[in-house]
Amino acid sequence: MSMQRVAYGEMQETLARILIKYGFSPDRAERCSGLFTDTSCDGVHSHGLNRFPRFIKAIVNGSVHVEASPSPLMQCGALERWDGRRGPGNLNAYECMERAIALSRECGVGCVALANTNHWMRGGSYGWQAANAGVIGICWTNTMPNLPPWGATEPRLGNNPLVIAVPRTNGHVVLDMAMSQFSYGKLASYRAIGSLLPVEGGFDTEGNLTRDPAAIERSQRPLPIGYWKGSGLSLTLDMVAAMLSAGFATYQIPADESLETGVSQVFLAFNLAALGPVEDAMAIADRILNHLQANAGDSDIRYPGEQVLKTRVENHLLGIPVDAAIWEEVRNL
Amino acid sequence: MSMQRVAYGEMQETLARILIKYGFSPDRAERCSGLFTDTSCDGVHSHGLNRFPRFIKAIVNGSVHVEASPSPLMQCGALERWDGRRGPGNLNAYECMERAIALSRECGVGCVALANTNHWMRGGSYGWQAANAGVIGICWTNTMPNLPPWGATEPRLGNNPLVIAVPRTNGHVVLDMAMSQFSYGKLASYRAIGSLLPVEGGFDTEGNLTRDPAAIERSQRPLPIGYWKGSGLSLTLDMVAAMLSAGFATYQIPADESLETGVSQVFLAFNLAALGPVEDAMAIADRILNHLQANAGDSDIRYPGEQVLKTRVENHLLGIPVDAAIWEEVRNL
Repeated sequence: MSMQRVAYGEMQETLARILIKYGFSPDRAERCSGLFTDTSCDGVHSHGLNRFPRFIKAIVNGSVHVEASPSPLMQCGALERWDGRRGPGNLNAYECMERAIALSRECGVGCVALANTNHWMRGGSYGWQAANAGVIGICWTNTMPNLPPWGATEPRLGNNPLVIAVPRTNGHVVLDMAMSQFSYGKLASYRAIGSLLPVEGGFDTEGNLTRDPAAIERSQRPLPIGYWKGSGLSLTLDMVAAMLSAGFATYQIPADESLETGVSQVFLAFNLAALGPVEDAMAIADRILNHLQANAGDSDIRYPGEQVLKTRVENHLLGIPVDAAIWEEVRNL
Repeated sequence: MSMQRVAYGEMQETLARILIKYGFSPDRAERCSGLFTDTSCDGVHSHGLNRFPRFIKAIVNGSVHVEASPSPLMQCGALERWDGRRGPGNLNAYECMERAIALSRECGVGCVALANTNHWMRGGSYGWQAANAGVIGICWTNTMPNLPPWGATEPRLGNNPLVIAVPRTNGHVVLDMAMSQFSYGKLASYRAIGSLLPVEGGFDTEGNLTRDPAAIERSQRPLPIGYWKGSGLSLTLDMVAAMLSAGFATYQIPADESLETGVSQVFLAFNLAALGPVEDAMAIADRILNHLQANAGDSDIRYPGEQVLKTRVENHLLGIPVDAAIWEEVRNL
């Protein structure tokens, strides 16, 4: 694999041109390409440029309706239910987090439940979005079945990523975590470099816990985080998303990567400014991180999002590192 | 250890009498003793009767102010900040979840952030409370430092239990999970019966992952669920609780079980009735559980709260099982 660096603007404009070719209006193409480019720029390659060809396939196969935008179905104060109308998942999620933020400006809290949408690509994007607006953001999505519940051998849960974002002047804290210990993408990466996982990541076909990524790919039995605990968390996140949105639960989402559509999501925003100066709240966050990392000696205590920010600065300066073959593939779309 | 069974009413009245002796008004004694008795009746012995002597000690040492009740500090629509005034943690939590539920009836969502409170005993209590009211409940608390962050050897995080509750006609789903894979109470139980943990639960003093509970008690290095993932989740739950409540973060809470006070909590309620008939939402929950457990063969797929309900019914019929020595100790308080 040969690596090269591509300037932010070049990547974004390239993706926008392709999106317009596939039917996006120029303004939506700009936002959508910006979300993909930001994701690669932040170092989350799996859901940035590297994901783009699959996104285009989902447009071609009809899972993603390029010009559909979400519309409100019900509103009660700070709580709203929206229909994603199978639009592009990242645009839908962005718009619903914007709406949750706006609701939080009026009501202190805002909650938007979104049905009938598509894969949101990097969940962390909507955490950064909330934190950039100075609010606390929490959101999650369900997914197709890709994780066996604790006690079972076949996938009946989604890995249902959960995002929690806290604003700070010196770098937001953005947690973006799926309920499986390792994604299938991560398993493939470890396998490709011939490496064992750093900790047990699933069961082999004999039902033994293993650090061998290929064995888990064969068994299709990745581990939920915390074994029975992540299994319960994944289930309840799915239930809340489906009940609030009246959309699909994991068991209703096609268990096929190329056809995964109709997912349900929840977006929450908490307006810190409603409770006093936002600076005071951000100072609380700063003090927590200072204590977390103080006098840590040789240990390496990071907060979620810390590495992202360093990577972003570097990639804006030097260009975004890409796999040359994927960059070539994308430019030919 | 000798086991006996005590009728629900007898336990509740006994605890209420003791609480009145220690300064509770009769109505508060009744609710507080009810929460303790419900917890034991549900089979969560560690935070029910078995915890009661320590609760009384916290009154005697001044950590818990028996007659203090929470008061609102700020309100903005669906978001409120309350001061717990160091009152009894379970009464404070109950009252704040009631308030979040009431807010959700008005605004669709309700959020109460509570500072300056005490250990809420069983977090699941407030999940059952929300689900009994027909709403979705989410709440969490921070705790004293008792969990090393990923990459560190000393406790700088709390185990910060998180509760997610979903109402159903046929038994609510109530997840109640701390961010450590095993609590110190669980480690002690495994050690007492000479058993290894079912999965790795922490590091020994040499820094190796281990299933030996005593080795983890010695090192004080229990594992966060999902390693780095639970570490990040614990941190962000602490940040959100401290920022919304303007109360203590984990690093400010005395790292001594008998002096742990001033914790911060968040209570969220989502009013399903604002979005349509609650029966429709509960039917979504039922279908999810039916698919989760359908044709499971020999596997044992449980949902969170399933076992609790069976235990509750049995203990209401037969009496609540207690350790005779603890029951004797409590009656002598």
